[in-house]
Amino acid sequence: MREKLLDLSKFFFPQSLALMGVSQKSGGLGGRSFLEKYLIAGYKGKIYLIHPQVQEIMGIRTYPKLSSLPQAPDLTMIALPANQIPLALKECAQIGARYIHILSAGFSETGSHEGMMLEKQLKEIAEEHDLLIIGPNCMGPYCPSSHLTAWGAIPGKSGPLGIISQSGGITQRLTEYACSLGVGTSKAVSIGNATCLDVTDFLSYLGEDEATAIIALYLEGTNDGRRLLTLARHISSRKPIVILKGGESHRGAQTVSSHTGQMAGNYEIWKAFFRQTNSIAVTNINEWMDVILALCLLPPARGDGVFIVGGGGGNSIIHTDICVRTGLTVPRPKSATMEKLKQLVPATGSIAGNPLDYWEAYLRADRLCLLLDIAYEDSTIHLVIVDRLIPRQAYHSPEVEDYVQEVAHYIKSHPKRKPTVFTIDYDGGDRELLEKGATLRHRFCTAEIPAYPSFERAASALSHFARYHLTLTERGKPLY
Amino acid sequence: MREKLLDLSKFFFPQSLALMGVSQKSGGLGGRSFLEKYLIAGYKGKIYLIHPQVQEIMGIRTYPKLSSLPQAPDLTMIALPANQIPLALKECAQIGARYIHILSAGFSETGSHEGMMLEKQLKEIAEEHDLLIIGPNCMGPYCPSSHLTAWGAIPGKSGPLGIISQSGGITQRLTEYACSLGVGTSKAVSIGNATCLDVTDFLSYLGEDEATAIIALYLEGTNDGRRLLTLARHISSRKPIVILKGGESHRGAQTVSSHTGQMAGNYEIWKAFFRQTNSIAVTNINEWMDVILALCLLPPARGDGVFIVGGGGGNSIIHTDICVRTGLTVPRPKSATMEKLKQLVPATGSIAGNPLDYWEAYLRADRLCLLLDIAYEDSTIHLVIVDRLIPRQAYHSPEVEDYVQEVAHYIKSHPKRKPTVFTIDYDGGDRELLEKGATLRHRFCTAEIPAYPSFERAASALSHFARYHLTLTERGKPLY
Repeated sequence: MREKLLDLSKFFFPQSLALMGVSQKSGGLGGRSFLEKYLIAGYKGKIYLIHPQVQEIMGIRTYPKLSSLPQAPDLTMIALPANQIPLALKECAQIGARYIHILSAGFSETGSHEGMMLEKQLKEIAEEHDLLIIGPNCMGPYCPSSHLTAWGAIPGKSGPLGIISQSGGITQRLTEYACSLGVGTSKAVSIGNATCLDVTDFLSYLGEDEATAIIALYLEGTNDGRRLLTLARHISSRKPIVILKGGESHRGAQTVSSHTGQMAGNYEIWKAFFRQTNSIAVTNINEWMDVILALCLLPPARGDGVFIVGGGGGNSIIHTDICVRTGLTVPRPKSATMEKLKQLVPATGSIAGNPLDYWEAYLRADRLCLLLDIAYEDSTIHLVIVDRLIPRQAYHSPEVEDYVQEVAHYIKSHPKRKPTVFTIDYDGGDRELLEKGATLRHRFCTAEIPAYPSFERAASALSHFARYHLTLTERGKPLY
Repeated sequence: MREKLLDLSKFFFPQSLALMGVSQKSGGLGGRSFLEKYLIAGYKGKIYLIHPQVQEIMGIRTYPKLSSLPQAPDLTMIALPANQIPLALKECAQIGARYIHILSAGFSETGSHEGMMLEKQLKEIAEEHDLLIIGPNCMGPYCPSSHLTAWGAIPGKSGPLGIISQSGGITQRLTEYACSLGVGTSKAVSIGNATCLDVTDFLSYLGEDEATAIIALYLEGTNDGRRLLTLARHISSRKPIVILKGGESHRGAQTVSSHTGQMAGNYEIWKAFFRQTNSIAVTNINEWMDVILALCLLPPARGDGVFIVGGGGGNSIIHTDICVRTGLTVPRPKSATMEKLKQLVPATGSIAGNPLDYWEAYLRADRLCLLLDIAYEDSTIHLVIVDRLIPRQAYHSPEVEDYVQEVAHYIKSHPKRKPTVFTIDYDGGDRELLEKGATLRHRFCTAEIPAYPSFERAASALSHFARYHLTLTERGKPLY
């Protein structure tokens, strides 16, 4: 199956942009705030402001109506009151402005008869005039490489992550989160009520988009479950799809209708969907970002056996339990591996094996690289988590040499490299520790080695990551 | 049942302390490091150093052997090589030094015949001479109120938390974690192989200890499951017991024997134990600390219905799902509550109800207190989580007035106060955001209002917390 693609590129790379509903006064989250952020982000295209009364806003001349513009804008953003939108859409149709983003709320999500009728009307106008509409009730498109970043991380960072979301707030959070760890976004779109363009339209588009290697979805519902299933199944064989699904619980599902006016659907059906499509289902934003980080930076997993490098007997045991609970295995190393470990690790106060309880493991780059080399040589091991303890007052531990670049280079250039991540647990110490830990985490991530703020988050990310790759391998390449 | 109590107080309030096995040179984690930390922590009692060769260490005169001391020390800490310990114990017995902590490793945890024989010998000597021994292979006692804080947070903070642990590293971490959030420790003890004094001895002691209101256990195994069950059942009706159990998985359990030489036991039996004793079972250190924080600072829960105050439709839905998944309920508010909420919350862009999607909710103290008051008046609501968003660049959100003290005071003095916690999600932004968020979290916690770094952690803590109190109420006070 290869379905006919809608060309949605103009939403992300518009040469010109018209804004309807920009107030003279700053404040709030309306059209004016979008204009301000477009300017801050350095959007390079032409900006046209439509305003019936004033001559200029923020030094930019305005036009009384859309039909006064010298050209049809590539993208029209509408932030007018809901009841004025049908008329605005007709104006768009008249001048051939086909790509439209409606920011305004006040439609079916209100639950009112008036809101539902307005939304129905909007859909009819779109169909009649062949308009491509994102929204209403949403933040619309976001694209760092065209400086179209009126929301989310500003100026943002270009990269492999594509995002389709039914929540603006959640997408803002994810773009900023990703950016802070060095992961860039190709394109993001907040689709709100998805009255015209649905998640499936953008999924189909990002599935073919060369700049997008990983797709993150925040979904509340869809009007076309069958198409979503077909698309997700085909795309996920080439690009992992990580889904945060809102409305798993009955009470959550009830809130969905007040948010985007959609039906959340039975979660049992969604679980079957995740399984059939080999989508990765997550339950909160941290888990979402954690698995995206792994998918962005790691080579594929060939199995689910983790080698745990850490310090402390208790920690080793708890970490093993965490791995097993999350669906990973902690294999007993081969005897050749055990011989090598026993030569390195002191007999008293440490435990040679897997988990490796050897708190000096992370102190020196050469020792750590030697341990990684041992793990990479052992075919029972497929993944490595290094618990890179940071010096805590309570541990009496020494400062550690700065080896982030050196170790990252060693891992990335190793001919037998296996997915390797670090845990840097900086919670619950003094402010200085937090600062050091967060900086170290950031440095590992920007050196393209995933680092997580707790062991349980590292294990959960690797578990999702490994399961995706193993299912892919089991199923083989689908007929596409 | 009221069993005969061992008086273990001298372990925590020794007037004098003898150290055997203190090296002249600094470094490592041996007796010398303990000495250094006792001095830093300001231990006020008499310190006696035993050393056969040198006259003084760190300016403190030494004695060639234990029998040269002018008095029997209240507590003797032994850090000698394992094979010298039987002789040292006999010296202790000769001078009447009954309270002993053995730091040294090299016993049954090595898996060697020699190690097991040494441990057996140690136990026999203890029984013959009625010695009270902590260890071997452990960090021993810790008590901030007597400045006996050679490990863990230094100088530490006195408070309601009692800790018994089979891992020194995990206890160090927990004391520091608790301290960083303003939660103090009454007494902690790392018991290692627990050859003589077992977890049950210290549990019995802390159960009666007036300074201890909450007990945290890190457990790998026990030699007396029946006594542990009886004790835990009785104590948990007065003091919550929060257990991190190492060795849930088969592979984790295998590591237990290399760590403390114990048997981890079948986890199904442990699950029955948790249920029967109304103990709170956690799976990692963050979850452990999170529930301790709730138990320390909150009034009892009368039900499991949460009121969710937050911003963003997507967030509201995800947070509802998280609550339900963790075993809490998100009740539909009473109609009187709905009326009050509708008066406060704008009709467009927000959702009046539970969850409450009202992102301005947290901006001003008066508004937030009004919302809390509404929640405290509604009998369907038993718990409150406020998602106190911090200003992110991506959210375009304004700075918030500083109302921590004001709101904390309002909550704590409200006649209908219900357990109320805050979520301050500072992960994944820039460094300034992290700094601000962590500071805010710390300020809430030290104002005695629990604050968590993610919604999922807040929900998990409240779920454990509520289940403990509800089970207590269901079962009524046990016959004790």
